[in-house]
Amino acid sequence: MNFKDEMKQKVAQIEIILDEYLPAQEGLQKTVLTAMNTTVKAGGKRLRPMLINETYQMFGGKGDIVKPFMAAIEMIHTYSLIHDDLPALDNDDYRRGQKTCHIVYGEDMAILAGDALLNYAYEVATKAFDLAEKDQIMNVVEAIKILASKPGIYGMIGGQVADVELEGTPLSMEQILFIHKNKTSALIEACMMIGAVLAGASKEDVLKMEECGEYIGLAFQIQDDILDLTGDEEEIGKPVGSDEKNHKTTYVTLKGLERSQRDVEDISKKAIDILEKYDKGDCYLTNLTRFLIHRTH
Amino acid sequence: MNFKDEMKQKVAQIEIILDEYLPAQEGLQKTVLTAMNTTVKAGGKRLRPMLINETYQMFGGKGDIVKPFMAAIEMIHTYSLIHDDLPALDNDDYRRGQKTCHIVYGEDMAILAGDALLNYAYEVATKAFDLAEKDQIMNVVEAIKILASKPGIYGMIGGQVADVELEGTPLSMEQILFIHKNKTSALIEACMMIGAVLAGASKEDVLKMEECGEYIGLAFQIQDDILDLTGDEEEIGKPVGSDEKNHKTTYVTLKGLERSQRDVEDISKKAIDILEKYDKGDCYLTNLTRFLIHRTH
Repeated sequence: MNFKDEMKQKVAQIEIILDEYLPAQEGLQKTVLTAMNTTVKAGGKRLRPMLINETYQMFGGKGDIVKPFMAAIEMIHTYSLIHDDLPALDNDDYRRGQKTCHIVYGEDMAILAGDALLNYAYEVATKAFDLAEKDQIMNVVEAIKILASKPGIYGMIGGQVADVELEGTPLSMEQILFIHKNKTSALIEACMMIGAVLAGASKEDVLKMEECGEYIGLAFQIQDDILDLTGDEEEIGKPVGSDEKNHKTTYVTLKGLERSQRDVEDISKKAIDILEKYDKGDCYLTNLTRFLIHRTH
Repeated sequence: MNFKDEMKQKVAQIEIILDEYLPAQEGLQKTVLTAMNTTVKAGGKRLRPMLINETYQMFGGKGDIVKPFMAAIEMIHTYSLIHDDLPALDNDDYRRGQKTCHIVYGEDMAILAGDALLNYAYEVATKAFDLAEKDQIMNVVEAIKILASKPGIYGMIGGQVADVELEGTPLSMEQILFIHKNKTSALIEACMMIGAVLAGASKEDVLKMEECGEYIGLAFQIQDDILDLTGDEEEIGKPVGSDEKNHKTTYVTLKGLERSQRDVEDISKKAIDILEKYDKGDCYLTNLTRFLIHRTH
């Protein structure tokens, strides 16, 4: 099977797992349950659950303890999008061509649906304890720790806060790297670390996955900045040149296009070098990394 | 020592524990850390951490694993207040005489500070694993499960959603009880259950604590409705008669004042009957329950 077909198949499998863990839409709180489910189901690349599962498989993980974490990370990702889109933050009416949560359900329900998804992610993740063999309990404990730290104040939220506060000001490279590392890489690191610890990988290997996740996130973001300058508007599905128009300091404005393109290559190579030491089989995870970084949209 | 002095001392001890677990206000995300800390420190009765600890002590709990949970539950309570106060929800500029989070830090930072507190609550709670003896690990697992479920869609958020959606419509007793049970009782149930499971109480005892927490929350809320009708404005610190003015259906409007007062007595008695079976020593928890329900403000 070629890579794109394999990816499609994996996405379909992930969506079955998501369905399994999303709440039934019933009861007096039905509106918020519907808002949660609809937004999670609205699509996306399912990259984060895929990274958890692929890393889990790479380290020889067995059984179902990975599934609640795959659902949980997608819920956390989705809550962050719902709250980012709110009028007080990015004020976006559309995402992926669909009306955003607060446009459909109102701002009050969007705030509550985001809260609910973040909270439910932890409720769902703890279901892994019931699926765990006795010798997997401490792996689940370690995975919950990672799930509770990387999306938080020393991870995703930290990056989001810096991004919001520094908007409209000229940024230093240090600030740009802080934002990318926290806002984007932190959750990717979480995915690869969770997959590894759940499979019982060594501490050293888990740290390698963290490093790899950081590179992937960073390369992904620099590529995003590059595409904003060079991409095809129709292919990307959003206007190009917006960073320049908004006088936004990006990796590319500080380092120049050519150097940035070289850096993406170098950083990707570091990630792939790590993966190739582990990923001996069909190399799907290595191919996924290449796909993520070398995308043209 | 009399009850009120003992309570003051316990509150002071809890505030030391909160301080220990709140994040340092530094780094590029400093604003959100300051917003989190300031709002948690803005005061309150510290009722929830107190209930966790008193139940833990009542069941003979030893060691420090209770502390992260005491901090975590107060963070969850505080996040819910920050988000409740937002313009899209209750739109309150003041709470306990102080400006609310979004008034001081802006709506964007208030949304993020609420998210951050909810997320950090779980990050903090997982620190209990590092404090646990080997035979306490599964107690911490059970406590995390409760901490992740009671504040969520089948607990506090569920009640909040129903309350927001049904606002301005005439309510049935069933709807009022759903809102009270979820919006108020759920977190009190969580506290008493977490204290019990951390101390290694039996499943039966944990369920008794859940039942007790439900009664306390319900009696507390009916008493709140009664005070809105009969309370002394100066003593309560907020205008009385607001429910009537807003045509809000409450327990009292459906059942009448006298019957409601009798119900508070009956429900409180049920809670205290449960507690007196366990609370043989200084009976602080029983006294706390009496104090909470029979308050005049």
